Amino acid sequence: MVKFALFGAGRIGAMHARNIARHERASLVHVYDVHRPSAEKVARANGAKPVDSVAAALEGVDAVLIASSTNTHVDLITASAKAGVPVLCEKPIDLDIKRVEHCRKAIAGTGVPVQIGFNRRYDPSHRAVREAVHKGEIGPLELLVITSRDPGLAPVSYLKVSGGIFRDMVIHDFDLSRFILGEEPVEVFATGSVRVDPEVGKLDDVDTAMVVMKAKSGALVHINVSRRAVYGYDQRVEAFGAKGMAQSDNLRASTLTRANAKITGAKAPLLHFFIERYTKAYLDELDEFITVVRKGEKPSVDFEDGRRALILANAAGESLKSGRSVKVRYD
Amino acid sequence: MVKFALFGAGRIGAMHARNIARHERASLVHVYDVHRPSAEKVARANGAKPVDSVAAALEGVDAVLIASSTNTHVDLITASAKAGVPVLCEKPIDLDIKRVEHCRKAIAGTGVPVQIGFNRRYDPSHRAVREAVHKGEIGPLELLVITSRDPGLAPVSYLKVSGGIFRDMVIHDFDLSRFILGEEPVEVFATGSVRVDPEVGKLDDVDTAMVVMKAKSGALVHINVSRRAVYGYDQRVEAFGAKGMAQSDNLRASTLTRANAKITGAKAPLLHFFIERYTKAYLDELDEFITVVRKGEKPSVDFEDGRRALILANAAGESLKSGRSVKVRYD
Amino acid sequence: MVKFALFGAGRIGAMHARNIARHERASLVHVYDVHRPSAEKVARANGAKPVDSVAAALEGVDAVLIASSTNTHVDLITASAKAGVPVLCEKPIDLDIKRVEHCRKAIAGTGVPVQIGFNRRYDPSHRAVREAVHKGEIGPLELLVITSRDPGLAPVSYLKVSGGIFRDMVIHDFDLSRFILGEEPVEVFATGSVRVDPEVGKLDDVDTAMVVMKAKSGALVHINVSRRAVYGYDQRVEAFGAKGMAQSDNLRASTLTRANAKITGAKAPLLHFFIERYTKAYLDELDEFITVVRKGEKPSVDFEDGRRALILANAAGESLKSGRSVKVRYD
Amino acid sequence: MVKFALFGAGRIGAMHARNIARHERASLVHVYDVHRPSAEKVARANGAKPVDSVAAALEGVDAVLIASSTNTHVDLITASAKAGVPVLCEKPIDLDIKRVEHCRKAIAGTGVPVQIGFNRRYDPSHRAVREAVHKGEIGPLELLVITSRDPGLAPVSYLKVSGGIFRDMVIHDFDLSRFILGEEPVEVFATGSVRVDPEVGKLDDVDTAMVVMKAKSGALVHINVSRRAVYGYDQRVEAFGAKGMAQSDNLRASTLTRANAKITGAKAPLLHFFIERYTKAYLDELDEFITVVRKGEKPSVDFEDGRRALILANAAGESLKSGRSVKVRYD
Repeated sequence: MVKFALFGAGRIGAMHARNIARHERASLVHVYDVHRPSAEKVARANGAKPVDSVAAALEGVDAVLIASSTNTHVDLITASAKAGVPVLCEKPIDLDIKRVEHCRKAIAGTGVPVQIGFNRRYDPSHRAVREAVHKGEIGPLELLVITSRDPGLAPVSYLKVSGGIFRDMVIHDFDLSRFILGEEPVEVFATGSVRVDPEVGKLDDVDTAMVVMKAKSGALVHINVSRRAVYGYDQRVEAFGAKGMAQSDNLRASTLTRANAKITGAKAPLLHFFIERYTKAYLDELDEFITVVRKGEKPSVDFEDGRRALILANAAGESLKSGRSVKVRYD
Repeated sequence: MVKFALFGAGRIGAMHARNIARHERASLVHVYDVHRPSAEKVARANGAKPVDSVAAALEGVDAVLIASSTNTHVDLITASAKAGVPVLCEKPIDLDIKRVEHCRKAIAGTGVPVQIGFNRRYDPSHRAVREAVHKGEIGPLELLVITSRDPGLAPVSYLKVSGGIFRDMVIHDFDLSRFILGEEPVEVFATGSVRVDPEVGKLDDVDTAMVVMKAKSGALVHINVSRRAVYGYDQRVEAFGAKGMAQSDNLRASTLTRANAKITGAKAPLLHFFIERYTKAYLDELDEFITVVRKGEKPSVDFEDGRRALILANAAGESLKSGRSVKVRYD
Repeated sequence: MVKFALFGAGRIGAMHARNIARHERASLVHVYDVHRPSAEKVARANGAKPVDSVAAALEGVDAVLIASSTNTHVDLITASAKAGVPVLCEKPIDLDIKRVEHCRKAIAGTGVPVQIGFNRRYDPSHRAVREAVHKGEIGPLELLVITSRDPGLAPVSYLKVSGGIFRDMVIHDFDLSRFILGEEPVEVFATGSVRVDPEVGKLDDVDTAMVVMKAKSGALVHINVSRRAVYGYDQRVEAFGAKGMAQSDNLRASTLTRANAKITGAKAPLLHFFIERYTKAYLDELDEFITVVRKGEKPSVDFEDGRRALILANAAGESLKSGRSVKVRYD
Repeated sequence: MVKFALFGAGRIGAMHARNIARHERASLVHVYDVHRPSAEKVARANGAKPVDSVAAALEGVDAVLIASSTNTHVDLITASAKAGVPVLCEKPIDLDIKRVEHCRKAIAGTGVPVQIGFNRRYDPSHRAVREAVHKGEIGPLELLVITSRDPGLAPVSYLKVSGGIFRDMVIHDFDLSRFILGEEPVEVFATGSVRVDPEVGKLDDVDTAMVVMKAKSGALVHINVSRRAVYGYDQRVEAFGAKGMAQSDNLRASTLTRANAKITGAKAPLLHFFIERYTKAYLDELDEFITVVRKGEKPSVDFEDGRRALILANAAGESLKSGRSVKVRYD
């Protein structure tokens, strides 16, 4: 059994706690949160112990799951890696690329696996698109189109500290692009508008955006983004190549189709948001991490992937300001 | 925690064992199987104890799950009910309506809940069709069309003791019809052919069949059945009424769609068979049963439902022989 | 140019008139209707001449299209065939099998082609199902399921003289079954209810029905029928065989799909009724007939097909009364 | 009857000739082509007269359809307008914006209607998307995503004189964007690659491209483009707004769906190319033009629309070279 410490007992932390507690090869032993009652509640529900410090959390555990607020990630990754404890950390590593670089250097010699929680890589449908591409079923990839729309705008208080739409939300799609491309984007163009809520504009951010990227091979990527889709969480991928096309579509709670005097073909609603849509993805992500911990393997999505997604998000932010395509360097 | 005894440690028994062991409000304590090594294996995998007799299995448990061979169901239901232990029993109750009647009388006074494992009632998609009907969304039900096709023919050794296509396989669809109709079929017509394997004909059985039923209200039901669908387990329901239509469709492992020079629109394969297709249904069925046990409630699908489905299956068999529509009586 | 006389200038006659007038290899010269003003109107709109008698209509024409009321078909077919003029006649030939037999004998020696207007055979989608079957793509046919629902109940005045649901409406599906089966149904079972309008019951007819047929090979056919589908004209075919499945679906005016806060996946409405749904089918049917006339070939759907569909409709009516499966003989 | 002269008797000219000849309110009288035998053939097939000069073609006609090579459009529009004859001209007006400006001035005072053949505006499915937007069904438009992929690369000889991917092919999508937006794009970004054939690169052109545009309101538009889709002509539109989404999809020759041991859900192939896909669109485009001619109305898509689409295509070309977003001015 892999013994886990959990950092962060908010909504997503609670979900990870349940997943760990129910996993056949894992158990949750410590929960740490700056808000002690949250830690207590999550610990109690999952047979774990709330602890009062990072050091106490790390004591006697085999693995760490970091689901605390973004600005704590770097310190927790560093502390865990230095303590020799493998890490599964929610995205993003940090909003500041300099802190990410610093962390990279700090953990460089440890050899401790650090897996980044880019959940979409584990979604069976997006993954099936990636497999179709990598098996050559659609030939060389030429166009990749990603639809990424949240069901509703997060509270302004959250948006203020979110790092902006590219580092907070589209970072998932930057990672998904790299995952499916199998190569690096070398140029990024981004544009955006404030269409959902004028408050977003006051934060010098946008809520509606389009990104275009070009990879080394000449493959082109498009991401279209909205902070609000009234019909639900809209997550689709379309990969087009010389020999064909592979698409993933949204998930629904059932296969119900309805017809009446006014409508035909109406489907069951989309699954609400990431916790519901990516239920299986979170389980598979955890499952891979547990294998990584037990076998000491390198995770399939690691610190460097988290860093590169942030570099792309930053490039998009720069392009949004300048109106120019930005060349990307990863070194 | 509801403590379970499991009877039967074959493929479906093993699945139920896992579901019980992982359920938050349940634990598996005893496993009984006439084949002792099977009981041991399933017990070991789920933290339970293999036992050597029915009596030992019933000792100290709160609930029983019967997944042993059909001819043992009646005795196990009776023993459990007499011991005051609630039962969740796989379908069918028995192949012989007389033994079912006998069992009914034997357990009549016990007041012990007996739930029958008609898994399809718990499938979110079929259930959504039922809800559309029962909420009046499609108006009075007029036509109900059920597609019921297994991915492949079971071994002839199994078919020999199966009770024939109507009592073994279509019994699910008879129950599903009653579930969605919300009333009783009063007439049954059935016809069939041997199209998959001539061996089936030697057993005086058919492998391809069509059923038509009429309910009291005049609503009509059709079931079409095959023991083999090369493209996979095909389970669909279509309910049509005065105000509209509701349909459930098959499930797939992903939402992948593919196109190439030869095909367009190709989807991910259907989930293989009942264990895969009805994964969530089995969990929800168990969940309901656990609530039944804890609260002493009547299950939503009970002994009488099992008996009535068998009466319909028998009527279908009779119609197949006679070429006539058979009137059904349930008393 | 093939010169046509048209009998019957009602709604469907007017449609045929337009199709003939616009066809590259045909022209409409005579229009006859017992209601002279209708004949005049249709003639005027299509550059033809209204005439006052059957004899006048037949004079100097190469072909006849019969779209008058059912009870006139037999006399018009006979008169045309005796005059040596090829016939395209709307279904059914007649409601009375004795009159059909009489007509068969009367025209037997003429050698004049008589094509019956079973439009569904020419629908590209149903036809594609037939081709998949006949090319062996789905292996030997085992189950054929036909959905046949009209958008709304015809006026009671029409229903009175319609011959009942099987001879008026389901006759199309009996023909379509034979077309796709490629062999003869040998047994018919039918049942039905009055669910749409009690007036139908007063006519000793039903408005909701289910048919099951068995073919010589053992292939099974199901047809489910309603006189009213609030969501539109519902016409689907599903052919299932040892190697796979082929399905045809409804047509819509556009490929629009809509989503909003209440619904997702909603499609454009179904095409309203047979004139709209089978637009291309009527053109292709006419096109085949013109080729038949010019080349003196046998039509792909002929008098005998019309007769056999009626025999099946009669068998269904008999089964509805008796509650028994009816054996069918075609000689 | 509106009497037409046709300029250009190539593939698309021949199609227009047939459409005119079969139209109830139109007839084709003159056909002119620099290649006299082509003019003769098309004239003969449609009951028209081949003529030897533009002047002869214009004599005695009510309308002109220009389907000759792009470099002749401006002169023919000018000659027709000066002769007072309304024009329906295939896109683009010209490849050179200066010649377009010159033409605009030349015909400014004539008041003669000039309609541009942007066929996609007349496609019932794309049109339904536009209507959903314009009726406010999806609320204010926020994201518009257009998929535009040809079935196969045109011959290099054609590509050489085509004006490049944006002016030749994507010009349709620039127009479609304006049609659905209902407002003007004010910024254009474009990027592209040579992925289909290196010969395209030698022409200083691309065969794979992505465009992003921003409209005054902040609505964002994306177009993804390939000169080759092995699965067929792929033409889809997705409009997303504050209250929902409307999408148009591809057309197929039938509604056939197939399943076998290897695939499920496979659909009938996409309609091959623009002549097949936009059959109804070409008829409706012509129908509108005939009404314009008869009633002296302004066409819904006119010279100015042709000019603005070219301005957008030029801006895309400029952006492709510079890597910057290009601000668009229409005056």
